[in-house]
Amino acid sequence: MLHCYFFEPDGKLKVANDPAGVRRAFQDGTLYWVDLENPTESEEEILWEVFNFHQLAVEDCIATHQYPKIDDYGDYLYLIVHAVDYNKKDGVFRTTELDIFLTPQFVVTFHYDLMRSTTQQRHRLTEGAIPPDRRPAFLLHQILDSLIHNYGPAMENFEKRISNIEELIIKKPDPRVLDRIFQFKKEGLNLKRIVGPQREVINRLSRGEFRLIPTELRAYYRDIFDEISRYTEMAESHRDVIMMALDAYLSATSNRLNEVMRVLTVFSTIFMPLTFITGLLGMNFEHIPGAENWWGFYIIIGVSILVGVGMYIYFKFKKWV
Amino acid sequence: MLHCYFFEPDGKLKVANDPAGVRRAFQDGTLYWVDLENPTESEEEILWEVFNFHQLAVEDCIATHQYPKIDDYGDYLYLIVHAVDYNKKDGVFRTTELDIFLTPQFVVTFHYDLMRSTTQQRHRLTEGAIPPDRRPAFLLHQILDSLIHNYGPAMENFEKRISNIEELIIKKPDPRVLDRIFQFKKEGLNLKRIVGPQREVINRLSRGEFRLIPTELRAYYRDIFDEISRYTEMAESHRDVIMMALDAYLSATSNRLNEVMRVLTVFSTIFMPLTFITGLLGMNFEHIPGAENWWGFYIIIGVSILVGVGMYIYFKFKKWV
Amino acid sequence: MLHCYFFEPDGKLKVANDPAGVRRAFQDGTLYWVDLENPTESEEEILWEVFNFHQLAVEDCIATHQYPKIDDYGDYLYLIVHAVDYNKKDGVFRTTELDIFLTPQFVVTFHYDLMRSTTQQRHRLTEGAIPPDRRPAFLLHQILDSLIHNYGPAMENFEKRISNIEELIIKKPDPRVLDRIFQFKKEGLNLKRIVGPQREVINRLSRGEFRLIPTELRAYYRDIFDEISRYTEMAESHRDVIMMALDAYLSATSNRLNEVMRVLTVFSTIFMPLTFITGLLGMNFEHIPGAENWWGFYIIIGVSILVGVGMYIYFKFKKWV
Amino acid sequence: MLHCYFFEPDGKLKVANDPAGVRRAFQDGTLYWVDLENPTESEEEILWEVFNFHQLAVEDCIATHQYPKIDDYGDYLYLIVHAVDYNKKDGVFRTTELDIFLTPQFVVTFHYDLMRSTTQQRHRLTEGAIPPDRRPAFLLHQILDSLIHNYGPAMENFEKRISNIEELIIKKPDPRVLDRIFQFKKEGLNLKRIVGPQREVINRLSRGEFRLIPTELRAYYRDIFDEISRYTEMAESHRDVIMMALDAYLSATSNRLNEVMRVLTVFSTIFMPLTFITGLLGMNFEHIPGAENWWGFYIIIGVSILVGVGMYIYFKFKKWV
Amino acid sequence: MLHCYFFEPDGKLKVANDPAGVRRAFQDGTLYWVDLENPTESEEEILWEVFNFHQLAVEDCIATHQYPKIDDYGDYLYLIVHAVDYNKKDGVFRTTELDIFLTPQFVVTFHYDLMRSTTQQRHRLTEGAIPPDRRPAFLLHQILDSLIHNYGPAMENFEKRISNIEELIIKKPDPRVLDRIFQFKKEGLNLKRIVGPQREVINRLSRGEFRLIPTELRAYYRDIFDEISRYTEMAESHRDVIMMALDAYLSATSNRLNEVMRVLTVFSTIFMPLTFITGLLGMNFEHIPGAENWWGFYIIIGVSILVGVGMYIYFKFKKWV
Repeated sequence: MLHCYFFEPDGKLKVANDPAGVRRAFQDGTLYWVDLENPTESEEEILWEVFNFHQLAVEDCIATHQYPKIDDYGDYLYLIVHAVDYNKKDGVFRTTELDIFLTPQFVVTFHYDLMRSTTQQRHRLTEGAIPPDRRPAFLLHQILDSLIHNYGPAMENFEKRISNIEELIIKKPDPRVLDRIFQFKKEGLNLKRIVGPQREVINRLSRGEFRLIPTELRAYYRDIFDEISRYTEMAESHRDVIMMALDAYLSATSNRLNEVMRVLTVFSTIFMPLTFITGLLGMNFEHIPGAENWWGFYIIIGVSILVGVGMYIYFKFKKWV
Repeated sequence: MLHCYFFEPDGKLKVANDPAGVRRAFQDGTLYWVDLENPTESEEEILWEVFNFHQLAVEDCIATHQYPKIDDYGDYLYLIVHAVDYNKKDGVFRTTELDIFLTPQFVVTFHYDLMRSTTQQRHRLTEGAIPPDRRPAFLLHQILDSLIHNYGPAMENFEKRISNIEELIIKKPDPRVLDRIFQFKKEGLNLKRIVGPQREVINRLSRGEFRLIPTELRAYYRDIFDEISRYTEMAESHRDVIMMALDAYLSATSNRLNEVMRVLTVFSTIFMPLTFITGLLGMNFEHIPGAENWWGFYIIIGVSILVGVGMYIYFKFKKWV
Repeated sequence: MLHCYFFEPDGKLKVANDPAGVRRAFQDGTLYWVDLENPTESEEEILWEVFNFHQLAVEDCIATHQYPKIDDYGDYLYLIVHAVDYNKKDGVFRTTELDIFLTPQFVVTFHYDLMRSTTQQRHRLTEGAIPPDRRPAFLLHQILDSLIHNYGPAMENFEKRISNIEELIIKKPDPRVLDRIFQFKKEGLNLKRIVGPQREVINRLSRGEFRLIPTELRAYYRDIFDEISRYTEMAESHRDVIMMALDAYLSATSNRLNEVMRVLTVFSTIFMPLTFITGLLGMNFEHIPGAENWWGFYIIIGVSILVGVGMYIYFKFKKWV
Repeated sequence: MLHCYFFEPDGKLKVANDPAGVRRAFQDGTLYWVDLENPTESEEEILWEVFNFHQLAVEDCIATHQYPKIDDYGDYLYLIVHAVDYNKKDGVFRTTELDIFLTPQFVVTFHYDLMRSTTQQRHRLTEGAIPPDRRPAFLLHQILDSLIHNYGPAMENFEKRISNIEELIIKKPDPRVLDRIFQFKKEGLNLKRIVGPQREVINRLSRGEFRLIPTELRAYYRDIFDEISRYTEMAESHRDVIMMALDAYLSATSNRLNEVMRVLTVFSTIFMPLTFITGLLGMNFEHIPGAENWWGFYIIIGVSILVGVGMYIYFKFKKWV
Repeated sequence: MLHCYFFEPDGKLKVANDPAGVRRAFQDGTLYWVDLENPTESEEEILWEVFNFHQLAVEDCIATHQYPKIDDYGDYLYLIVHAVDYNKKDGVFRTTELDIFLTPQFVVTFHYDLMRSTTQQRHRLTEGAIPPDRRPAFLLHQILDSLIHNYGPAMENFEKRISNIEELIIKKPDPRVLDRIFQFKKEGLNLKRIVGPQREVINRLSRGEFRLIPTELRAYYRDIFDEISRYTEMAESHRDVIMMALDAYLSATSNRLNEVMRVLTVFSTIFMPLTFITGLLGMNFEHIPGAENWWGFYIIIGVSILVGVGMYIYFKFKKWV
């Protein structure tokens, strides 16, 4: 799908949905924003046929699995950023790619998946909310702002799931917990791989490196930079928390082993001597002391109880039971 | 609540408690300090209606869970710093946010929680202690100085609690100790996340990056910087100490397991051969050597004692008991 | 083997296969590319006799086991890069060295092993695909581009093998898995040792440090740089994933030990008291309570079942079984 | 105590021990060195009353537990350095603070504890060894040189104690060794916390950052810098060695557990089948094969020996014994 | 021993072996190289009496246990480098110190131990191989080149010994392997401590920081720099490999423990129920079911075999045996 927004000479915002409309608006110099959402091949063609973007940028655009980056092609900037993939239901943290071209006159966005941030902007435009500032750098800020903002709930959800796991470790540490810890570790690794370069992209936009970002808009970009920095920090500390969860799990496992072994040892050390005594008195000998007396059996019972209680007191003293 | 301090033309310090007073003092150019403590919405409005601060700074101000930072808006500086949260009783290390605007004429502080450092300054002002230096950069130093100073007792308390835990590990390592170690680790992580950027804020104030901090006051800011650097170092080394405590706990656990297993093995290796011998002699056979003699039983007793003592000596030699 | 490409005055591409041809093309100034593939000694000689390259560069060329680097000799650049070794069948990730000289007029490539990237370029030239840009810096880009591109499948294969191992750990953790984890760790280490400096070489080529790379070609080099950066990131994260696999393996081992010990303890604590009771009643005594009654045996059976079931419920409650 | 050294007009070195003497020498411009050793309050006063040092520097001076640093107050430098605390007998590595003011005319040293380096300098002066170079920067070098030099024996002692521990781990790893390893770790941490910033202080003195250190003396400061760098390296590698000692201890513990468990298993697997056989033949049955024959007992003995020897050979083969 | 080389006016190389000869050659300006090999005190004196080198450099020269460094004294450079100590037979990686002075006219080398690199140069000179380039910076390069080159075999030997250990871990992991791993770790630590600063020394020589190294020789120094960088990389990766060996050893230990415990558990769980049954039937009761029948014994044998086989199948299913 292709969504093209341009301003008529009287300042009215119009919409076009075909490459021809884009071409016309581009030639009239009224083009404001082209949003290519899972475009067809003929829609993709406008990137090089109409806008004449550099072959390498177009290739990166069409290719998937790119990391966030920003390239300055002189007349325009080419950005790759990643949005959180919010409409999945398996609760796993994923990201999807958004490619953006920023020129002095207009913005081009390119993405294969539905994207909440561009959809939000489109709604705001079509609902007549004429943007107060028609500059493309402002539109770019709006898109990036809502894109980064959408990380918030996902990060909080991630944090909540980790703290659920922590509770589980304390209550009932079983091997399935371990699988989930490793799942988190992988998600965290992936998140770091995306958020790190993305933060760098926003940083370069905010520190006045590019002529296409006017000075008076920099504070706005710095604001997004602060937000993504906060998420980067959170991702960093998630890593520590996950490591801690792993340590906690291993400690819990080791504590259980200790507990199990103590029980085994307490039982063994109480019953092995007693069994030996009964074995001794159970020998097939003719002369066993006390064997003829009626109280022999009770004396052995008494000795057994004494040994058992003595051992128990000893283990109590050793803090084993 | 709103506390506004301004100097009358004759140099007398006056107090106002309503937005109207602030507006008047601002227009007269006599404004010195506005402290917004958990402000109402109408009090918050003076930030943009009277002082005309940038929308982004005001948003950051009202939002919570921001990390320490410093933004230069040309005419004024906007700082976020964190004070230790001192009036909690659960002994956990927390911080609360303080937002500060520094202009060439006055200071604005904004916070939702009671804050010891601003309260101290207000007392000093109202008790007639006219500040020796009426410049806002000096007032900012006073506020930051007492804010950072308050970290001291909290850090020491944290350190004392850790060393209590260490003692406990040596005396009685049980799983609850582990929970407390992980609790410390989380607090330490949180502390690092706050103190690190805060140190950077003070560093930028002290190294003459901002025109609003006069050169002759820089030594004072460097003094706070030294103090917070010391706390950062302490926080760093706390991390190492906590890791060490975890290692110590795991080692203690593993030592106990060893001890338990040695006891089990010593008992088993002594009594298993003996039980076998009694089993052998307890077989339901007609011809068992020595079964008819009265001394048979005592020989077995003797052999058992010999085997037991021999094993014991062997384990003594092996340093198991 | 020696492959020499030069342009005749009429712009036609010609091929020569002997040192004499190279020398002639060099003197005529028509030389475009010399590819030395596992050269004989007399072919190697052209490096210093014809091209007069610096003795140190020639020595590095002939020596093997060099790391990627780039040296600026003023008139020409000397590069060492590594290609993935693709025609091995043991599935292990290896690299082979490619030495390149870039002069303002021509390119010299030198390698002992068959190399896919140079072979590809030779095919494209001999099949009449006259390069659109005859500059050597463009040819260098073409060679490096296909060389780096070939890392892709190898990296993906590596990733797939690691995730196979992960599945295996969950299903059946045995010591052979450990050997394979360590094998991966070594491969990853080796990969990092090669890809790190190689990325640096491409970085220096792309950032305009060398006069021999024209400004308009830099975007193309930056494109390869992005690709190799992606592989470096992948190599980095492989390391984390391998560490995780090792942790998972050790945890699985420790879980099994726990399981084994629980079984042992459950059996021991059930049967040791029971065996003691039978031992007690098996003593060679004349007066044993209940020994004369026909129901004695069945009472003991009943007691045994009671003790066994009681223990089982206790362990169920303790979550051991 | 206060020790003040000044030069009379005829070049003779004189000593004064009271604030009045210091004030006189300061006004005459003949002051060379004031050493304040655990000063009284009236002696401390000369810092601000006579020398007019900045309030912040004086506060840092009087406060304890400061980290090494250097502050440039324009007319003078203020340094905090740490000496090793040599007169303790518990063998623990501690440091004490020394505060130094360097002005173009004289040096002021301030310390609460006895300090070997200042005492040495005082002796050299009073014994008539007129310094060849009366410049304060030279005196400062002398003091720092002997201060840093005193680290040598302490570092070597530390190293020797660590290698003692290593021997102990190999010979007899018991839990007390662990306590000592953790003690070392703490000392090492503390050492790093002091030596790191101290190295930075000396580095800044040696690289010509301060006008008060003449160019021709820099080589001397670089010499101390090399020495403290060596100690920093040693402290760094101590950390690795201590970590290694911990690993070694844990490995030794784990090896012992293995050894213990092998013994237990060997005994159990030999005697459990044998005890079962005797139990079988000890059943209270009327018809037990071989029970009536005189050789029955000896066959069982034989079978037991066979089973025992067979098991032993099996374990030998498995390398368990 | 002292070896002094100088050029007579007619360009002939001459040798002198006493301080007087050095002094003469120095005054004539014909001095080329003085090699002080384990010098006597009177030979050491030429450093300050004849060459007038700075006192600090001379002190560093005579002192031992210095780390590699380079000091610029304006007229001359003072270097400390370390050669591998090749004539030891215990197979441990050690280094010995070589001190070098480079002046615009001549080179002075100073070492206490026999040194392969200086000996090689002396042979080349005395065998009439007049150096093609008489500049001292060229001689310095020759000495450093062969010194660094000698690291190669030692590094390879180190690598081979490590891979021997790895094989041993897989075949027969016993505690002595651990001792050797720790030995390697210490050697690696030591190596890193030497090679790191040495690489920095060569780097500074090669990047044109010192006027005494002519521009046209820099490529040669860069060549040594590449070589030592390769060794640094190797040392770095050795560290990882040693860590891996330790992990492998600990895993092997833990696997063995698991194996041992499984055997114990399998035996216990099979024989404990069986022994209980025989105990039950061995009770000294008058009425035991089946005791009077001749087939009673055989039924118990049958039940035992059934229980044993059943347990075995269960453990087979659980993958324990």
